[in-house]
Amino acid sequence: MTSTERARDVIRWCRQLAKLSEDRSATTRTFLSKPMREVHTVLAAWMARVGMAVRVDAVGNLRGVYPSGVSVKPASAPRFFIGSHLDTVPNAGAFDGVLGVILAIALVEMLDDKRFPFAIEVVGFSDEEGVRFAAPFLGSRGLAGSFDAALLDLTDDAGRTLRDAIHGFGLDSNRIPDAQAPTGSLGYLEFHIEQGPVLEHLNLPLAVVDMISGQSRADVTFSGMEAHAGTTPVKMRRDALAGAAAWITEVEREAIATAGLLATVGRINVVPGASNVVPGQCTVSLDVRHPADSMRRAAADRLSRAAAEIASGRGLTLTNELRLDQPSVAMDSSIAAMLDRAVERAGFPAHRMSSGAGHDAMTLAPRMPTGMVFLRCAGGISHHPDESVREEDVAAALETGVLFLDEVAQAHHG
Amino acid sequence: MTSTERARDVIRWCRQLAKLSEDRSATTRTFLSKPMREVHTVLAAWMARVGMAVRVDAVGNLRGVYPSGVSVKPASAPRFFIGSHLDTVPNAGAFDGVLGVILAIALVEMLDDKRFPFAIEVVGFSDEEGVRFAAPFLGSRGLAGSFDAALLDLTDDAGRTLRDAIHGFGLDSNRIPDAQAPTGSLGYLEFHIEQGPVLEHLNLPLAVVDMISGQSRADVTFSGMEAHAGTTPVKMRRDALAGAAAWITEVEREAIATAGLLATVGRINVVPGASNVVPGQCTVSLDVRHPADSMRRAAADRLSRAAAEIASGRGLTLTNELRLDQPSVAMDSSIAAMLDRAVERAGFPAHRMSSGAGHDAMTLAPRMPTGMVFLRCAGGISHHPDESVREEDVAAALETGVLFLDEVAQAHHG
Repeated sequence: MTSTERARDVIRWCRQLAKLSEDRSATTRTFLSKPMREVHTVLAAWMARVGMAVRVDAVGNLRGVYPSGVSVKPASAPRFFIGSHLDTVPNAGAFDGVLGVILAIALVEMLDDKRFPFAIEVVGFSDEEGVRFAAPFLGSRGLAGSFDAALLDLTDDAGRTLRDAIHGFGLDSNRIPDAQAPTGSLGYLEFHIEQGPVLEHLNLPLAVVDMISGQSRADVTFSGMEAHAGTTPVKMRRDALAGAAAWITEVEREAIATAGLLATVGRINVVPGASNVVPGQCTVSLDVRHPADSMRRAAADRLSRAAAEIASGRGLTLTNELRLDQPSVAMDSSIAAMLDRAVERAGFPAHRMSSGAGHDAMTLAPRMPTGMVFLRCAGGISHHPDESVREEDVAAALETGVLFLDEVAQAHHG
Repeated sequence: MTSTERARDVIRWCRQLAKLSEDRSATTRTFLSKPMREVHTVLAAWMARVGMAVRVDAVGNLRGVYPSGVSVKPASAPRFFIGSHLDTVPNAGAFDGVLGVILAIALVEMLDDKRFPFAIEVVGFSDEEGVRFAAPFLGSRGLAGSFDAALLDLTDDAGRTLRDAIHGFGLDSNRIPDAQAPTGSLGYLEFHIEQGPVLEHLNLPLAVVDMISGQSRADVTFSGMEAHAGTTPVKMRRDALAGAAAWITEVEREAIATAGLLATVGRINVVPGASNVVPGQCTVSLDVRHPADSMRRAAADRLSRAAAEIASGRGLTLTNELRLDQPSVAMDSSIAAMLDRAVERAGFPAHRMSSGAGHDAMTLAPRMPTGMVFLRCAGGISHHPDESVREEDVAAALETGVLFLDEVAQAHHG
């Protein structure tokens, strides 16, 4: 099978898995949902056929080990991880996350039983998007050994705790520490669509990522007083949504005024939410990103102050709950150099870029040498059903992956 | 039983029925919901004890007829209606609507088998708030004979049609024409909490309503393009929520700038609604009220144009769906004069006011002579669990009601 034929297969797999969804008409697959179990079942069978020993760890990551060619005790075998995440945002595309997992399995299949002086472990993370519990990277935190037990008390929209969700999936939350990678793991590689327009603009199939921007996420709640829309003069209202709307326009203004700053309000919830009742409470999400942590934190602080000013000027009260304060993370320079060589040996120009989006790679970087490869995606569209990748770019990624493993093997020997 | 003791009973009934709810911890009772059936069961038993013939009509209104003292064929007996609505907004108080129904039953009970030359029909309307199908007055439209069959195709958030909801409740939507009041009905009287701060400010228990402001309601949808919050520069976004937020601040500005204008955005819905996805679509409700129809329509037009300008300036598309265009409605002047006399005979100052809130009375006014009495409510608070009325004000309303029926009887004889 040529790498182009294999790339076609990879894309077909991605589109097939996109049908395993919580929604009938769209792709939505959150942490430990029913369709996540269906994805596990399908992928585990394929991983086993390719010669991997498959398990689901206590935080719900699907993991398959392709043994090393060196006969040592399994526990002490050095190991190289390749993976990405299997969860999606609501109404997602077919490639964000899942492409990196399927590419990893296809890569192992391409090895055709060739062995390395290290085991290869393919990981499909249970949660990266953070949709269900409003906290991202739950899966990779498990592998990185940075899963804080306090996370288990988070609740989803149905009021169910993360702990209950894990138990409901047949897993044991007390075993989460066992999910972490063994000491001395050789590294982690993630393939992911770019989710932006840069590679398409440059007419390049792949980029090696050298930096991931930090992000702040917060839930900001404006509270006023419910009132009848027909009897309360507008000047006498304490309208929580009007306050939130004023702040949303301020968030946009701040992002346009500050070079490199991304700031987004993606979620909004109003109580009680009837057309003839002045809203008493309004909660909005804030997502702030910048390559420089100091710039990001300063912007988040300015937006917090703006929210407080808007609230106090309108007789509203404000709560501002920080959900994430993730610093920028540099990728490992040796891994990046090996990826550059592999891309060039595969016949493509080496190109470096930083990522404005967060990825599991940023959670794993503190634990082991970590690298990332972006694949061009059409129109920069992601988190949307129109998301797509080209067959030839997936083939380029597969060829790069095989050559990269040779680089790792040489470095390990050397 | 004194009228004060009876008023205490009325308040106790209201608080009891507030527990019949779709939410465990709040009062929410929408059109033909399960708790609405429970309310019917409880009230029908009481109505029957008081000597009424009880039925539920095809649009889900609970109706009880207290026969006249004149022996004529029931179909040709003249009839006077007293009622209000049994549905609520989400997270409602215990008195909006249901107080007027319970007051009507208590009023009939107070008659102690005294008969009038007309039948009294108590009505508990199935829907006034319009929460479930985003169209209000479904119940009173049935009684008024103005229920348009096209309404049956409206769908609720679960995608169920109004027709199916009626059939699911065991009713026959083909029989809705039978729900209308007989020709020659004498009138309709509604007791309702003021839902505003005026009576409390004037230190008065009651007001006779002479005018109900018109209202426009619309659903306005801004559509842009979903994008990843971490990779799409803010200037390149087509953010539907940012557009909606700019318009919400414009709605507020317009209402503050225009004397007598009330304008409210009470509902907002964002797709896909994840913190790390730029919103691709945002739908908001608009509610506009003014005593003068021309002023109301001009304001709604200005706001429509402002939405279109904001959308086109941001590369968004706009749909603007008018859900309601209800003209101002004058109450019947003879009924109002009889109510003035009854209030004064009960020992209180006659006070007239107009209503900024819509009521079933406005649907019935084109069909028969219609009147309305407001009861003072604490702090002007309504559509909120803190909604409350005073015992002495309910007693004043009961006494006024009994004296008003005498006025009607005299007018009927004269």
